[in-house]
Amino acid sequence: MHMKTRSPDTIAAIATPFGEGAISVIRTSGPEAISIVETVFRGNLPLSTARGYSIRHGWIVSSADRTVDEVLASVFRSPHSYTGEDSIEISCHGGMLVTKCVLETIIAAGARQADPGEFTKRAFLNGKMDLAQAEAVCDLIQAGSERALRNSTVQLQGLLGEQLQLLKRELIEVCTLLELQLDFSEEDIPAASVQVLEKRMLACRARIDTMIASFGVGKMARDGVSVAIVGRPNAGKSSLFNRLLMEGRAIVSHIPGTTRDFLEESISINGVRFKLIDTAGLRESGDGIEAAGVALTRNIMKSADIILLVLDGTSRSKSIEEQTILSSTFDAGAKRIVALNKIDLCEVIDGTPDDYVRISAMTGQGVAELKENISKLLGRASQDTELVICSGRQFGLLKKCLGSLDNAIGSLLSGMTGEFVSLDVRSAIEFLSEVTGDITTDDILESIFSNFCIGK
Amino acid sequence: MHMKTRSPDTIAAIATPFGEGAISVIRTSGPEAISIVETVFRGNLPLSTARGYSIRHGWIVSSADRTVDEVLASVFRSPHSYTGEDSIEISCHGGMLVTKCVLETIIAAGARQADPGEFTKRAFLNGKMDLAQAEAVCDLIQAGSERALRNSTVQLQGLLGEQLQLLKRELIEVCTLLELQLDFSEEDIPAASVQVLEKRMLACRARIDTMIASFGVGKMARDGVSVAIVGRPNAGKSSLFNRLLMEGRAIVSHIPGTTRDFLEESISINGVRFKLIDTAGLRESGDGIEAAGVALTRNIMKSADIILLVLDGTSRSKSIEEQTILSSTFDAGAKRIVALNKIDLCEVIDGTPDDYVRISAMTGQGVAELKENISKLLGRASQDTELVICSGRQFGLLKKCLGSLDNAIGSLLSGMTGEFVSLDVRSAIEFLSEVTGDITTDDILESIFSNFCIGK
Repeated sequence: MHMKTRSPDTIAAIATPFGEGAISVIRTSGPEAISIVETVFRGNLPLSTARGYSIRHGWIVSSADRTVDEVLASVFRSPHSYTGEDSIEISCHGGMLVTKCVLETIIAAGARQADPGEFTKRAFLNGKMDLAQAEAVCDLIQAGSERALRNSTVQLQGLLGEQLQLLKRELIEVCTLLELQLDFSEEDIPAASVQVLEKRMLACRARIDTMIASFGVGKMARDGVSVAIVGRPNAGKSSLFNRLLMEGRAIVSHIPGTTRDFLEESISINGVRFKLIDTAGLRESGDGIEAAGVALTRNIMKSADIILLVLDGTSRSKSIEEQTILSSTFDAGAKRIVALNKIDLCEVIDGTPDDYVRISAMTGQGVAELKENISKLLGRASQDTELVICSGRQFGLLKKCLGSLDNAIGSLLSGMTGEFVSLDVRSAIEFLSEVTGDITTDDILESIFSNFCIGK
Repeated sequence: MHMKTRSPDTIAAIATPFGEGAISVIRTSGPEAISIVETVFRGNLPLSTARGYSIRHGWIVSSADRTVDEVLASVFRSPHSYTGEDSIEISCHGGMLVTKCVLETIIAAGARQADPGEFTKRAFLNGKMDLAQAEAVCDLIQAGSERALRNSTVQLQGLLGEQLQLLKRELIEVCTLLELQLDFSEEDIPAASVQVLEKRMLACRARIDTMIASFGVGKMARDGVSVAIVGRPNAGKSSLFNRLLMEGRAIVSHIPGTTRDFLEESISINGVRFKLIDTAGLRESGDGIEAAGVALTRNIMKSADIILLVLDGTSRSKSIEEQTILSSTFDAGAKRIVALNKIDLCEVIDGTPDDYVRISAMTGQGVAELKENISKLLGRASQDTELVICSGRQFGLLKKCLGSLDNAIGSLLSGMTGEFVSLDVRSAIEFLSEVTGDITTDDILESIFSNFCIGK
């Protein structure tokens, strides 16, 4: 159980991205935030008399009485701030040197440089948000697709926390009922009660299961959906890769076996990020380097979410080689899509399966359809969903919670005592509490907040 | 004369540097700023009722009723804002995608993407700052040394504008006195008046001259002081360059003539930025490429502020070659400093001039002293000065002003009529007005504000 101790010192950090811009923001938080900034602030009105959620105009002046910059200071008073502590956000000119000088002035006046994520950690410790919301803050900043952004915005609103609190309340009631049995009898739980309890526990189980099922979608949205572009040498993989990117990052060449390493680039289709991987040609080869490339390709295929197989439409013989490749894409277990390339140069051979998308990477023909088909492969992931689990930590805990609940249901149905069954329900509750951070440890907090940027 | 027309539309831009951070700021300004943001803002309290200099917490919601981000909205009401117009600064999460989405939402709601410097341009047009202050904003953001930062902070406070207004007032009085003569006589100005007027004009001239003289210092502070490191091949120029940088950017080698192109890096000594230039060895050579390098070095020496000549202390013969190099550094006309290198490997030869700084680029011995001596060469530039002209535009106008004033004084002393003398004084006043922007044209504004970043 984590103690919600009040952090005694005042922290400061540059909160805006590093670089040159119009405005930078230096953030301070802690019991001395207002009094520390006051010592280096010269305005018409002092900061100490400023209400929360108000702004003062003035100048930051260093200890040597040197004017550093003209600033706006936004004042927030505990508990009505991001961290729950007294806070000041100083908006200064967005030069790299001037921003650094303002931060140094604040630190010289008594603040400490903040650790990564320390503002959000304080927000969590002061009860301003639960752990799932804190994780959403990090995901929101790193969001690389509209879908990922939407998922983290929903989480930021605390929807997961709310649903988990409801679940916990329900499971606590189940526990109480189970443990009440202890008071009435030494015997097993009556059959009628078993039925009621089972029904309630199964309902909880279903809700947790839905959350767990959303993880695949959430993870894909956050990290992107990997699409391995595979096929025989010269089938046009790199051309298709380029066409999809609409820019020339991969080297296109007509010498078979050119792409020996792999290239990865991201594109967005219907708001979802797809990571395209251009692989080496799938052909066994005597050339040592190329053979290594082929082995790499097979590994990429194993870990890809989608395999995009490119066939050369001009190559009329369905060689044994091609059959091997086709079957190897089936072996990989990922979702598969086949593009028949170079249709600008040939007639489509009779007997070509209907689900092959006919394209020309060179002219762009059929590529829009191909993109739509890739998007459709995802099914649910490309549709709107309410709440989506994006964090591996949350996913792992919910799986454990489900396991405990399954144990409890099993024990209940096999006629164990209420006391025994309730042990597993209690353990399920604890896993839910870890998701929201009602129960946590310094190690868990450390591992979550170390992923944050400075100033958040 | 520039018309201070009110810009009718509302502009918006990302004001923080591009990249990933804790916070980004999206800035809007214009008559509809508050009502436009209101349409996409969901908070407990509406923006329309917010006082100036207050902050509202809420969420940005796009037209599709999709929640984009949790934000703080700082409200400023005309004329008490940076631009003088109604303004809102939206502080959102500092992810690249989320920041872009917030801006797009504001633009979809009716704002226009701002041009570079458009906020500051509006501030100038609405009389919130003079043109010298506007230029200082740009310099402040780009400041690469503490000295440059300090100069622009002083300018930002409007000191130049104040001094120029005083000067203008004085010159207008001089004009009035000159033109009064017209009413009293058809003759020349009486001798007593000439003396008084000359004294007053000379006093103005001296003040302008001081400003002009500060430009060298200001320019060096802003752009850095260039230090060309020259010497014979293998004298240890690149080693010294590296030692001064304390990092290994230049390739060090014992093969004479390795550094054929030149490398430039910046270091800060006593708050001033020095641009170190590592040059090719100064030796006439049959090798075509190296000869080109030597020619380049001579060009660099001509434009450098300081020449740092590196001599090899182990090379006992003072060859004719070395004498040639020594004299060529005198020819260049820049300030010169001589470093006797490799003193860890040799005794210093008798007769070595006292002003040679004895160093070892290899061990670092004497390098601190060398840096101090470089800094001292600047004299005034490394000392505190009140007001410093940094802009070439200001410098040029002040020079023209001085020229007009000199003409006026000449005419006065040669007995011209008051009417004639006052023409030149009026022209001097106009040049001062151009510095502060009391007189300006669209072209001048365009050229100033196009150097700004977006969002400022």
